[in-house]
Amino acid sequence: MGTLADRAQSTRASLDGLQALVRDDLAAVNRVIVDHMQSPVSLIPQLAGHIVASGGKRLRPVLTLLSARMCGYDGDRHILLAACVEFIHTATLLHDDVVDDSDLRRGRETANALWGNEASVLVGDFLFSRAFQLMVADGSLQVLDILSGASAVIAEGEVMQLVTSHDTATTEQAYLDVITAKTATLFAAACEIGGVVAERPRAEQEALSAFWRLFGISFQLIDDALDYSAAQATLGKTVGDDFREGKITLPVVLAYARGDARERAFWRRVLEDGAQGSEDLEHAIALMERRDALADTVARARDYGARASQTLAPFDDCAEKQALLDAVTFGIERAY
Amino acid sequence: MGTLADRAQSTRASLDGLQALVRDDLAAVNRVIVDHMQSPVSLIPQLAGHIVASGGKRLRPVLTLLSARMCGYDGDRHILLAACVEFIHTATLLHDDVVDDSDLRRGRETANALWGNEASVLVGDFLFSRAFQLMVADGSLQVLDILSGASAVIAEGEVMQLVTSHDTATTEQAYLDVITAKTATLFAAACEIGGVVAERPRAEQEALSAFWRLFGISFQLIDDALDYSAAQATLGKTVGDDFREGKITLPVVLAYARGDARERAFWRRVLEDGAQGSEDLEHAIALMERRDALADTVARARDYGARASQTLAPFDDCAEKQALLDAVTFGIERAY
Repeated sequence: MGTLADRAQSTRASLDGLQALVRDDLAAVNRVIVDHMQSPVSLIPQLAGHIVASGGKRLRPVLTLLSARMCGYDGDRHILLAACVEFIHTATLLHDDVVDDSDLRRGRETANALWGNEASVLVGDFLFSRAFQLMVADGSLQVLDILSGASAVIAEGEVMQLVTSHDTATTEQAYLDVITAKTATLFAAACEIGGVVAERPRAEQEALSAFWRLFGISFQLIDDALDYSAAQATLGKTVGDDFREGKITLPVVLAYARGDARERAFWRRVLEDGAQGSEDLEHAIALMERRDALADTVARARDYGARASQTLAPFDDCAEKQALLDAVTFGIERAY
Repeated sequence: MGTLADRAQSTRASLDGLQALVRDDLAAVNRVIVDHMQSPVSLIPQLAGHIVASGGKRLRPVLTLLSARMCGYDGDRHILLAACVEFIHTATLLHDDVVDDSDLRRGRETANALWGNEASVLVGDFLFSRAFQLMVADGSLQVLDILSGASAVIAEGEVMQLVTSHDTATTEQAYLDVITAKTATLFAAACEIGGVVAERPRAEQEALSAFWRLFGISFQLIDDALDYSAAQATLGKTVGDDFREGKITLPVVLAYARGDARERAFWRRVLEDGAQGSEDLEHAIALMERRDALADTVARARDYGARASQTLAPFDDCAEKQALLDAVTFGIERAY
């Protein structure tokens, strides 16, 4: 398995491979993004540029491009639509950081820390509107239907998470509902669009949608585990962000459900009451290990990943399909 | 002119008259609004219901309905689209209150005061997405184009306002740009939609759009004057909200531009530095009166109102046209 640093490097290599396959398309997407976040109001491109340029993996547009190509699409509508997906994702991140009151994302200061919550809310609104303008320019009501529906479900998921946010007694199912809505829905929508532009049969569009939904859940669960893992640091992120924000994620849900009265009292104190001392993160990780919460979160992620891979069976083997399968593996192997 | 209370009553009667003309349509719009803000996540209808039911005048949907009827439209697409306009307006209000950190709107506690900023941001996002879903269901790319464009311009206007928000040296033109973007754009977009569903010639759609843009500016300027006027109290609003939030509105722009060094120092202290004492609002109103800032704001509103009314000249006389002309008068007479 090698050292942590080795594994981080191989993870990065796998991601580079995915991006390489759609390099030209992705460069075109980046140009569309930069062109369309312009505005006479200079704070907009300034703030949007900060988050768009902040080293994000562009995972959603990359996979949109891959799935369109896997469907045999050879036009260029997927470029514009991949940019729409990234705009919606960026708007969601901006509003998320306001909600979480985060100061750091991907190791950089967040837009709300630099420019204030107000600007983040409004620039998010701008990017969201701009995404719809671009979709209108593309002219497909089916695409507009998919992405407006996905946006409504994402907002519902965010509200659901807000309601359960400090509730340590959240069930595993309730938590899965939240991340399905928050994360997996945009993944699934992005993919469906690939199938739509390629005009593939409905069954294939649905297989792709299922792939992304399952992949999205798998990906989010690994993110949850990483937040409590030393591997996180090698990916340039801070350990314990979720913990400090009192976020209820699957490792917490499992550790709480399996914990004794004393452990539950600990979880309630640190996450519901927000009373955290300097040793508490370490103790939280120790409790998660005692209750196999991190290992089981990864195991569930692996299970969703395997189901995701199976949904691609109907598609002919090709470089793009292999890359999607690799993406699933990459998503999971980040955790080692 | 009668007492303040008399005038408030006649204003209300004029508004009632407008609403009466489209009573059945408006009832249908309200049903669409209530039906489509439902969600399995109960906080969404709860919070959205609070703002939707909070005694708003439904001015935008009322005027959409009126303009569609004035164009001779006799279908029912305008019902659904008027609801979209109100959803977008409501989403904007929710995000606005977060930005302004307002505790009161229309004399009631704001959603962010009751449920927190996070919920207001997210429910705003939900309503905005829902509006686009409804437009997709209507199926007109032209309508989607108009409202996604308007939403982007509104967000730009809000960011512009944020940038200039505590700058007492804002010019009259810069301020008019902000309110044109923030307020008048949605009015104009709502109207264009009336012309679009009625399939009227382009020139008439543009006349309607110009009517609403001018009307919107007129309406906002009166709102600005009212915030410093005793008449405000009779409309159930608090005097001085803009002042306490440090908002730069036209009365401030005029009073500052015409003030001497000592007056300008006062405006900078209370609005830029936010250092306000208990007598400062009264002093601000006295300075505005000394510099004719309130009277001239109303005079400009009256001028925009007159230009708005002129744009309706090409339309045949009918009850709806008369009602729109009355709306302009109503908009201005609130200030007495």
